[in-house]
Amino acid sequence: MDLDGCIKALSHLDLDTKPVSVKAKSRDFFWYSPVLKARLDHVTADFVVSPTSEAEVIEVLKTCYAHDVPVTARGTGTGNYGQAMPLAGGCVLNLANMNKVKEIRPGSVVVEPGAVLRDLDAACKGDSGQELRMFSSTWATATIGGFVAGGSGGVGGIRWGSLRDPGNIIRLRVVTMEAEPQIQEITGEDLTRVAHAYGTNGIITELEMPLTAAYDWVGMFVTFPDFGEALRYAYDLASQDGILLKLISVFEPPVAHDYFLRVKPHVTPDQTVLAIMVAPQSMAGFETFTARHAGAEVIYRSDQTQWTKAPGHVFEYGWNHTTLRAMKIDPSITYLQTSYGTEDPVAKVLEARAAFSPECLQHIEVTRSGGRVNMAGLTLVKFTTEERLDAIVAEHEAMGIPNFNPHRYTLEEGGRQATDARQLEFKRQVDPKGLLNPGKMISWDDPDWGYETMYAWPGLRKAAE
Amino acid sequence: MDLDGCIKALSHLDLDTKPVSVKAKSRDFFWYSPVLKARLDHVTADFVVSPTSEAEVIEVLKTCYAHDVPVTARGTGTGNYGQAMPLAGGCVLNLANMNKVKEIRPGSVVVEPGAVLRDLDAACKGDSGQELRMFSSTWATATIGGFVAGGSGGVGGIRWGSLRDPGNIIRLRVVTMEAEPQIQEITGEDLTRVAHAYGTNGIITELEMPLTAAYDWVGMFVTFPDFGEALRYAYDLASQDGILLKLISVFEPPVAHDYFLRVKPHVTPDQTVLAIMVAPQSMAGFETFTARHAGAEVIYRSDQTQWTKAPGHVFEYGWNHTTLRAMKIDPSITYLQTSYGTEDPVAKVLEARAAFSPECLQHIEVTRSGGRVNMAGLTLVKFTTEERLDAIVAEHEAMGIPNFNPHRYTLEEGGRQATDARQLEFKRQVDPKGLLNPGKMISWDDPDWGYETMYAWPGLRKAAE
Ligand SMILES: Cc1cc2nc3c(=O)[nH]c(=O)nc-3n(C[C@H](O)[C@H](O)[C@H](O)COP(=O)(O)OP(=O)(O)OC[C@H]3O[C@@H](n4cnc5c(N)ncnc54)[C@H](O)[C@@H]3O)c2cc1C
Ligand SMILES: Cc1cc2nc3c(=O)[nH]c(=O)nc-3n(C[C@H](O)[C@H](O)[C@H](O)COP(=O)(O)OP(=O)(O)OC[C@H]3O[C@@H](n4cnc5c(N)ncnc54)[C@H](O)[C@@H]3O)c2cc1C
Repeated sequence: MDLDGCIKALSHLDLDTKPVSVKAKSRDFFWYSPVLKARLDHVTADFVVSPTSEAEVIEVLKTCYAHDVPVTARGTGTGNYGQAMPLAGGCVLNLANMNKVKEIRPGSVVVEPGAVLRDLDAACKGDSGQELRMFSSTWATATIGGFVAGGSGGVGGIRWGSLRDPGNIIRLRVVTMEAEPQIQEITGEDLTRVAHAYGTNGIITELEMPLTAAYDWVGMFVTFPDFGEALRYAYDLASQDGILLKLISVFEPPVAHDYFLRVKPHVTPDQTVLAIMVAPQSMAGFETFTARHAGAEVIYRSDQTQWTKAPGHVFEYGWNHTTLRAMKIDPSITYLQTSYGTEDPVAKVLEARAAFSPECLQHIEVTRSGGRVNMAGLTLVKFTTEERLDAIVAEHEAMGIPNFNPHRYTLEEGGRQATDARQLEFKRQVDPKGLLNPGKMISWDDPDWGYETMYAWPGLRKAAE
Repeated sequence: MDLDGCIKALSHLDLDTKPVSVKAKSRDFFWYSPVLKARLDHVTADFVVSPTSEAEVIEVLKTCYAHDVPVTARGTGTGNYGQAMPLAGGCVLNLANMNKVKEIRPGSVVVEPGAVLRDLDAACKGDSGQELRMFSSTWATATIGGFVAGGSGGVGGIRWGSLRDPGNIIRLRVVTMEAEPQIQEITGEDLTRVAHAYGTNGIITELEMPLTAAYDWVGMFVTFPDFGEALRYAYDLASQDGILLKLISVFEPPVAHDYFLRVKPHVTPDQTVLAIMVAPQSMAGFETFTARHAGAEVIYRSDQTQWTKAPGHVFEYGWNHTTLRAMKIDPSITYLQTSYGTEDPVAKVLEARAAFSPECLQHIEVTRSGGRVNMAGLTLVKFTTEERLDAIVAEHEAMGIPNFNPHRYTLEEGGRQATDARQLEFKRQVDPKGLLNPGKMISWDDPDWGYETMYAWPGLRKAAE
């Protein structure tokens, strides 16, 4: 790569080569995983460029292509698997300044990739009482482009499923990495080639996302004396077609007591806690339903309760914020991403708890999958060794509980995807030199890779050297 | 009853005693059922009074109570089971003029009972881009009070379930039938005592209903060469969490060809037809999903297609409009209301078709029940005799397909409710003389009645004399 020539050619843009700030923009939340932390800590780009328009993106890609410089896109770097980390150095393409909300219509919005989820929601609410269907719990800091390219779903998933479900992304506008970068409008089945592709298949310069009605959601904490009872309540509440929900998270004791500092004064170590978001017009139905459950106690309601120390948004206790809060108190903690499915998820969770507690503590997110109530686990794990972590993953798999391994930084290993021939073929067209986020698509580097060899891929070992 | 005294006492109100117009306001769509038609055709009230305020409602009830005059509430009389027909004569309380929309908030509306569903939707859309979660397909003519007191659900049920699900009615304000009529605000579990009670447990004077975002729904007709394939498509489409739907109706051939005059030129007698409503922002996802089904062909889209004779709203081909259209072409047709449930409804429907077609033709409404995709049947039946109709119902029951018998005018027989002790106890308090819509609650007249004796209750036989 001709780094100097590239930097010189781009020097009229907002470009940064200062090692400290370049290193800062070369990192994300990879340190959630002790495995990735050990392997990726040294990673840094050579420079950061921050375009403010699609024309500038095209110019950067064209120039980097000409100089054989790798390009790794970045929103605000909140990914947990090193998705945004430039393994081969080169250019970090920081899209945070390309953040205009372009058009808000009934049911949809057209937006640039760098818009922060919170700002986007505020714009849509202000314009016409609308908001995104779903957001990562990093709503306050993450970008819409990073969410679509690096995330999977989150708050709102209890109603709308996940980002990969048809209808949850309408259109992506993408610039390719070629001698003459092309603009492609991606819709329909093709969306899976670009969404959740970690920026390996083109740079997203515009997104068209569906919206839904915005409400002043009531955030709550609810306690139960019994974990199983709480899970069944969560399942049944999510099955109520007339009650509009945005979140149900369930925390095995003593997660809330030990790790949620502002909740701690209000719960005991043996209470199961749920974080729940309900639309105001559904609060009457919610109360009717909840009153049927003798064990349930609403200890906090964002529209009523005054705690001396306000807890903030309840969704910032769920999804991957749970892990963050636990790690802050106990740095030895890491996590798993499991699926308990839709068949009989409550029984599966209880089985997993019986097998692994207290080494693993259940943190359940209730979502929808294929039209049914689904439970996903963001299980907290007291980390000891990599061998034990791998064994825990393997034991879950043996119990019929699939894992989306968050201790791997490649698409295939983390996403449980077999090598996707269409995705790979698409990359050959849009990134012939393989310069976009190198190292993240195993099948590009190792065409014979298959999911069965997941733990054997040499890439991870090499990075650790 | 002292009819003359009562009429005199109420003569300063909008009161009608002309036999022709009183008889007109004493009827509903009971003639859908040849069984009810034979038994109820003679029914008429003695007078109709049309209040415009709650104070007038109270005055009417107080006066009727004092004179022992029965009172049967009426919206616009589109019920199908004679719900609004005054079996014991007396007063028809016509609420159609009490139709103010009182307050529209984010997610809910407060409204008087006589507001027509279409007008209510228009008011909510105009105010803040909102609309009702669900409506009966009689949207253009039926009232919100009649829908809640006499209906069960409808268009929108594919997203929100049915009216009886907690959250789908927020609050009902009710006037009781006592010497001094009381005002009760009904919420929570108590809602089941008044909603779908045919006006036997108080007169609704105000409703608080949840709203959802209004969209310019795209209405479509889709054809399939194969009925089973169409059913599976309908089930899978309804299972798509990211595609916002309002309606999926499935019509066994040749229903659409034979009975839908404006659709006929565009389909063959052996094609299965679906009526579907999709939010505009979900059309891209809908098209992606539908393209996976080789057999599917979209023959009409309300936002694109020009037919010489426009078909109107597609929902006016579904729910109980299907029956209406069929009866217009073939007066011998009537219908059933069956439930194919959530377990494996497609298999159940195919079983029923194999057993009963062409005497019965499947018309399926896809809804939600307990958080899962549900199929309800508004099966068309070529009527021959009452005995055969009863046998068809019994044969369905024997196959494990429950019926909500639309050929009965009582709450218990039509609604498949066992005698509800709480509802009965409530009636004792709010209507001690039993003057509200007499004859509709079997357990009031016959405390020993049980569901197992459904076909034996003497009330029906007596009415036929
Ligand atoms: C506390 C915490 C909670 C979290 N909760 C959730 C959650 O609920 N759900 C969830 O899905 N994730 C969650 N995450 C992960 C992450 O925050 C989300 O995926 C987030 O939306 C990423 O946005 P970002 O702007 O930080 O993206 P980044 O981390 O900057 O980038 C993510 C990926 O997208 C690529 N990318 C960024 N912009 C573009 C572009 N314009 N074109 C092409 N590729 C691009 C990057 O190269 C990278 O591979 C959480 C993380 C943390 C730390
Ligand atoms: C073509 C057609 C299609 C239909 N589709 C559907 C459908 O999709 N879903 C559905 O549920 N039904 C359906 N129905 C039945 C009926 O139209 C609906 O239930 C409708 O909403 C009733 O409204 P209405 O104003 O006509 O009520 P009415 O028929 O006037 O009254 C219905 C019942 O409610 C009582 N009532 C009315 N107002 C009050 C009040 N203020 N207080 C107390 N009691 C009151 C009456 O006494 C009566 O028992 C259909 C009927 C037809 C003819």
